[in-house]
Amino acid sequence: MNGNEFGRLFRVTTHGESHGPAMGVTVSGCPAGIALSEEDVQRELDRRKPGQSMITTSRNEPDAVEIHSGLQDGYTTGTPIGMTIQNKDSRSGKYEPFVTAPRPSHGDFTYSAKFGTRNWGGGGRSSARETVNWVAAGAIAGKILEREGIEVKAHVNQIGEIRAPKVSFEQLLEHTEENPVRCAHPETAEQMRERIEEYQAEGDSIGGSIYFETRGVPRGLGAPRFDSVPARLGRALMAVPAATGFEFGLGRSARERTGSERNEDWTTNDDGDPVPVGNDHGGIQGGITTGQPIYGEVTLHAPTSIPKSQTTVDWETGEQKEIQVIGRHDPVLPPRGVPVVEAMVNLTLVDFLLLSGRLNPDRLDDQPGEYDTAYHPRSPENK
Amino acid sequence: MNGNEFGRLFRVTTHGESHGPAMGVTVSGCPAGIALSEEDVQRELDRRKPGQSMITTSRNEPDAVEIHSGLQDGYTTGTPIGMTIQNKDSRSGKYEPFVTAPRPSHGDFTYSAKFGTRNWGGGGRSSARETVNWVAAGAIAGKILEREGIEVKAHVNQIGEIRAPKVSFEQLLEHTEENPVRCAHPETAEQMRERIEEYQAEGDSIGGSIYFETRGVPRGLGAPRFDSVPARLGRALMAVPAATGFEFGLGRSARERTGSERNEDWTTNDDGDPVPVGNDHGGIQGGITTGQPIYGEVTLHAPTSIPKSQTTVDWETGEQKEIQVIGRHDPVLPPRGVPVVEAMVNLTLVDFLLLSGRLNPDRLDDQPGEYDTAYHPRSPENK
Amino acid sequence: MNGNEFGRLFRVTTHGESHGPAMGVTVSGCPAGIALSEEDVQRELDRRKPGQSMITTSRNEPDAVEIHSGLQDGYTTGTPIGMTIQNKDSRSGKYEPFVTAPRPSHGDFTYSAKFGTRNWGGGGRSSARETVNWVAAGAIAGKILEREGIEVKAHVNQIGEIRAPKVSFEQLLEHTEENPVRCAHPETAEQMRERIEEYQAEGDSIGGSIYFETRGVPRGLGAPRFDSVPARLGRALMAVPAATGFEFGLGRSARERTGSERNEDWTTNDDGDPVPVGNDHGGIQGGITTGQPIYGEVTLHAPTSIPKSQTTVDWETGEQKEIQVIGRHDPVLPPRGVPVVEAMVNLTLVDFLLLSGRLNPDRLDDQPGEYDTAYHPRSPENK
Amino acid sequence: MNGNEFGRLFRVTTHGESHGPAMGVTVSGCPAGIALSEEDVQRELDRRKPGQSMITTSRNEPDAVEIHSGLQDGYTTGTPIGMTIQNKDSRSGKYEPFVTAPRPSHGDFTYSAKFGTRNWGGGGRSSARETVNWVAAGAIAGKILEREGIEVKAHVNQIGEIRAPKVSFEQLLEHTEENPVRCAHPETAEQMRERIEEYQAEGDSIGGSIYFETRGVPRGLGAPRFDSVPARLGRALMAVPAATGFEFGLGRSARERTGSERNEDWTTNDDGDPVPVGNDHGGIQGGITTGQPIYGEVTLHAPTSIPKSQTTVDWETGEQKEIQVIGRHDPVLPPRGVPVVEAMVNLTLVDFLLLSGRLNPDRLDDQPGEYDTAYHPRSPENK
Repeated sequence: MNGNEFGRLFRVTTHGESHGPAMGVTVSGCPAGIALSEEDVQRELDRRKPGQSMITTSRNEPDAVEIHSGLQDGYTTGTPIGMTIQNKDSRSGKYEPFVTAPRPSHGDFTYSAKFGTRNWGGGGRSSARETVNWVAAGAIAGKILEREGIEVKAHVNQIGEIRAPKVSFEQLLEHTEENPVRCAHPETAEQMRERIEEYQAEGDSIGGSIYFETRGVPRGLGAPRFDSVPARLGRALMAVPAATGFEFGLGRSARERTGSERNEDWTTNDDGDPVPVGNDHGGIQGGITTGQPIYGEVTLHAPTSIPKSQTTVDWETGEQKEIQVIGRHDPVLPPRGVPVVEAMVNLTLVDFLLLSGRLNPDRLDDQPGEYDTAYHPRSPENK
Repeated sequence: MNGNEFGRLFRVTTHGESHGPAMGVTVSGCPAGIALSEEDVQRELDRRKPGQSMITTSRNEPDAVEIHSGLQDGYTTGTPIGMTIQNKDSRSGKYEPFVTAPRPSHGDFTYSAKFGTRNWGGGGRSSARETVNWVAAGAIAGKILEREGIEVKAHVNQIGEIRAPKVSFEQLLEHTEENPVRCAHPETAEQMRERIEEYQAEGDSIGGSIYFETRGVPRGLGAPRFDSVPARLGRALMAVPAATGFEFGLGRSARERTGSERNEDWTTNDDGDPVPVGNDHGGIQGGITTGQPIYGEVTLHAPTSIPKSQTTVDWETGEQKEIQVIGRHDPVLPPRGVPVVEAMVNLTLVDFLLLSGRLNPDRLDDQPGEYDTAYHPRSPENK
Repeated sequence: MNGNEFGRLFRVTTHGESHGPAMGVTVSGCPAGIALSEEDVQRELDRRKPGQSMITTSRNEPDAVEIHSGLQDGYTTGTPIGMTIQNKDSRSGKYEPFVTAPRPSHGDFTYSAKFGTRNWGGGGRSSARETVNWVAAGAIAGKILEREGIEVKAHVNQIGEIRAPKVSFEQLLEHTEENPVRCAHPETAEQMRERIEEYQAEGDSIGGSIYFETRGVPRGLGAPRFDSVPARLGRALMAVPAATGFEFGLGRSARERTGSERNEDWTTNDDGDPVPVGNDHGGIQGGITTGQPIYGEVTLHAPTSIPKSQTTVDWETGEQKEIQVIGRHDPVLPPRGVPVVEAMVNLTLVDFLLLSGRLNPDRLDDQPGEYDTAYHPRSPENK
Repeated sequence: MNGNEFGRLFRVTTHGESHGPAMGVTVSGCPAGIALSEEDVQRELDRRKPGQSMITTSRNEPDAVEIHSGLQDGYTTGTPIGMTIQNKDSRSGKYEPFVTAPRPSHGDFTYSAKFGTRNWGGGGRSSARETVNWVAAGAIAGKILEREGIEVKAHVNQIGEIRAPKVSFEQLLEHTEENPVRCAHPETAEQMRERIEEYQAEGDSIGGSIYFETRGVPRGLGAPRFDSVPARLGRALMAVPAATGFEFGLGRSARERTGSERNEDWTTNDDGDPVPVGNDHGGIQGGITTGQPIYGEVTLHAPTSIPKSQTTVDWETGEQKEIQVIGRHDPVLPPRGVPVVEAMVNLTLVDFLLLSGRLNPDRLDDQPGEYDTAYHPRSPENK
């Protein structure tokens, strides 16, 4: 059974294993008329790619995207956009000890139990390398959101017990990309970095979390109940490898608030529209957006690939053995997870925009039935 | 846009508004050969129904289910099962003040902003009354799980700041239904009940959470990545009205654990199979079940309908006004939410069983192509 | 496995067996703001219902629809519309001889082979009674098409070897409902009626076909290739019970035409738009609508329930036996199939309108984000 | 809106334009354990590829497939299979005259009307080049069918007015691939070839049809009503470019048969099972397979690209002009359509096998939960 598809109108279909020939993603249902280039996608892939700093894996992947279809003269055509990212630096050999001796807390055993087999090089399909496809698709969604005046930004708000203070959306935009931890609070980022290096030195890894926030999401998105915004975000963000928790608004702490504390009176904004006086509701009421910022958190457990000695069982021989997962692994997931979370929020929002009629599924100019040449000038280079 | 469908092979399609003529649910894709009666469904509906105790709404609904199709002589036939639950005690009139003056933190405004209109009696489609459909469908899923030796049980583990100690699965089974709070720890349940009544007396409400756990789920379920078990549970449980957070395994606290703390060595069980030495992984590795119990928590915010005075704005007149949402409302959601959470976990698991080939989508006896009479004796009462 | 769902955004989910308690259909994804009453649906059900004339079954079903949800003050609210049609005149007893002795060319054997069981009264789920759900849903789709200026009309163009001459769309509208055969060419209708009565008198039945045509379908609908208009109509119309062929445009005869004969030059219409000089293309080029009328034909084989003596085998005893399917059966399907074909075309077109951005999935007024009271006046009768 | 996805469990997602960089297809939901190589796919692509004979286009495409994922040591792993076919011989320049002057009866105008733009080189997305993806996916489905003992074979049974006599399944297997027309009746094939060359010499093209037949399809497949076998085949085969009609069993001629002629008595086979005495029902009763061969026909209209002079309108200038579609075009579609039709039938059948529980969606060996190494020997070449 497959699980490689996401979205209802703006759809993503992925393939690829960590050490296979290539990763690939098809974006189906992207409307025509969006300016798009390989550079737009590459920019996001570069944020996710390995080897960015001392606290990420040293696997050397250019993660260069090729777009195979769906464009004409720099604009989307409404037809499916196929993208491929070649795997260049896979070294499967070192995974051979684990073919029948599952690494602790990885997907080795469960994949083999499900399928009777697995692509075992580098974790194969269970590897977080899959998220390169998500970021590529999310970059296209991001182009649409940009055009609609919608912003999505995430940062790392906790590593181990080090938690960043609340930061403003402006701080998110300004500081997140300044440091290798991707924490928008520079002092905390520095503490996090130091702490990560300590774990790394010990041959260990550590958990953490990612906070995300939006601006400009219009009211009226979401389709209760099974396709409410929380339900869809819940699926999108709990699909992120290593996610163990998702919250929005007050999240887990809502359990300790009374109704009178959490409820928000209505007032009017400058347009004379009703608006809630606060945003403890996290931008969503009754499963539908209110127009206030959506915000939430995703918890990611510590990376399971650690050099420390651990014990496994070989299912062919039945023997226990000590192993070390030595390789090129991240000591912490959130820094590279930031673009992944942004991508999944992007994809979710664009799908809702299409489903709620804010965007025309066929074309952004919203003039159905008009044949024109707006996006396909007879450019010399296209002949 | 609709959001009333759940599941990929075991599918649920719902309709109904709180104060409309009837609620209804169609279960599509249920295999043939399951013994099923209206009583099986009614039993679960009775656990969710209003008016069970002093700490639930006094709305008087029998919630009597009628099964319209999909049965022959007490067994499912593999064809869709239609069910209807009439609404008997709706009193829409008292909601008239809120037609254009949204209740704080309800879905009144967002539904109207989305659709331009709404069924406003009793919250209409945004009401948690919708979950009667989920529980009805979940009861059928529960019959299948029972047959497969799979158990799903939930209880209320927190109300406000009162948190139950960890209880065993046996305690869950034994104590949950003994008290109106549905907390499996009797002493805590009593404290919770008292505290709820205090909030109730103050015209207020309070948040809380529900813990769930499984037994007997086989290894190998789940389809990474977008349809991993966490992703599917994330959607299922974040769809629950008032849910603001979902966690499984170590959940939110995983952010503070190192890899070496959280990783679990492999040992062998009595069958000689590899098993992890612990269950911090919550029954899921690489998005796929390990065969260990799945457990998690859902946070539900405080009910938004409270008698305390609050402020709203009438969007027709533009005027602010004080309102009280006086009616028949729950002061806390988790006690009646327990069967809802169980239903959603049931539905998710049965769908995975079908998708993973553990169950035959057509028939439970797994003998495709054999015509027989096993489930349709020529009973006199059927003629 | 279920097969009771149709449509991608405008979705139909059905349940019910011929002799079960009730038929039911949920229409999900219908936008808000459509004037709709039970009478609108009833009018179409009455066209399909049994007992209309001597050449239809005499089963006495009022086919009275109840709408359970999705309306406020006579307008749709954007939430799912649940409908139930009670079965009143089922007499299962006479089907008992066929429980293990399948009727020739019915679904008795195949349903039992698939599911190991079946609801055997009156054909159960395999009965064309299911189409009552389709017509109910199609009536709602028809209301939307009417508002968009789109017309869909079908008539019976062949019964046995009697074929109606080509009729104009105006003739379709004017004459189809005038005679019990639903053939828009009155003289042919009369010949057909006589011929049908002859077959009926012989205890036999006869095949035929239904022609359909549209007006006002805009250009640009359809999503090649798997969701092209022909592909979607192909599924919709081959799902009709007894359908053995579907054609559009030149249909089967296109195999004998050269490219130069079939190709149509482009000219301009009054608006200066390019239009093809003919309509051999049947309103569809490259899988997408051109704005010209769509037209096609569906072949329905003869009803399989006939009083003539036939031979079957009892799978319990292994013995052959002679049977007569005596009951209340149609001698020919197309007359009652006309509203069914129209319903399926309606449903297909509305789904395409939504998918192509012509209609807003949330609301017809196309002002997303505006909360208003347009469709929910505080009417006294609603309180 | 996209239309590039097919299947419910065995899923196909495609992308690519005729003259874009590459075509691509992702097969999702293929069970683990199927022996598969690029050669298996290439063999089928070679049957469809251009330049095979004088009566096909001379476009020179190697159509070499690369498999990017989903394999381990020559067996499928249950994870998505990504495939890419590079476009090597695209010459877009000659299509420039048609950017705003639609070719008669092509998709030029409708694509531009739908999307406001289009990839215009070689027909872009509307080109039948898309079917290279279908054949690649269908080859994988074919491997599964082969393993299950199911055969699907098609041939060209009509070109213009030349119709082949009925041939046996053995003849289909033996003769279809012997001649460039792919007609299993050699004498007729020769006549067809001559006639095609005449049309070709006249700068014209001609329509035709493809007949298909199956062996070994088990009884019990299909999910009435919307997912009945005829409904699914109807969608699959009407999606084929240029299809204007689909029939199965008696097809269109069923309209002239009486019930007593078409109905088939039941007898018993060697196993003592009930079987119909004939196969006018085309292997399907009540929408579900009977176990008899499924057979049917697809009509394909004449290719629309012809050198003969035709008239179009330029929508920028509003002027009519004479055009000739000179290029590398097929004079007739059925010969290269044979593998396309087979592919679509293959895909439909495999999906039904999965949906009906005949095949385990996760793995063919049907031992859920068993981790093994059957399909992933530690081969040296894989390290």
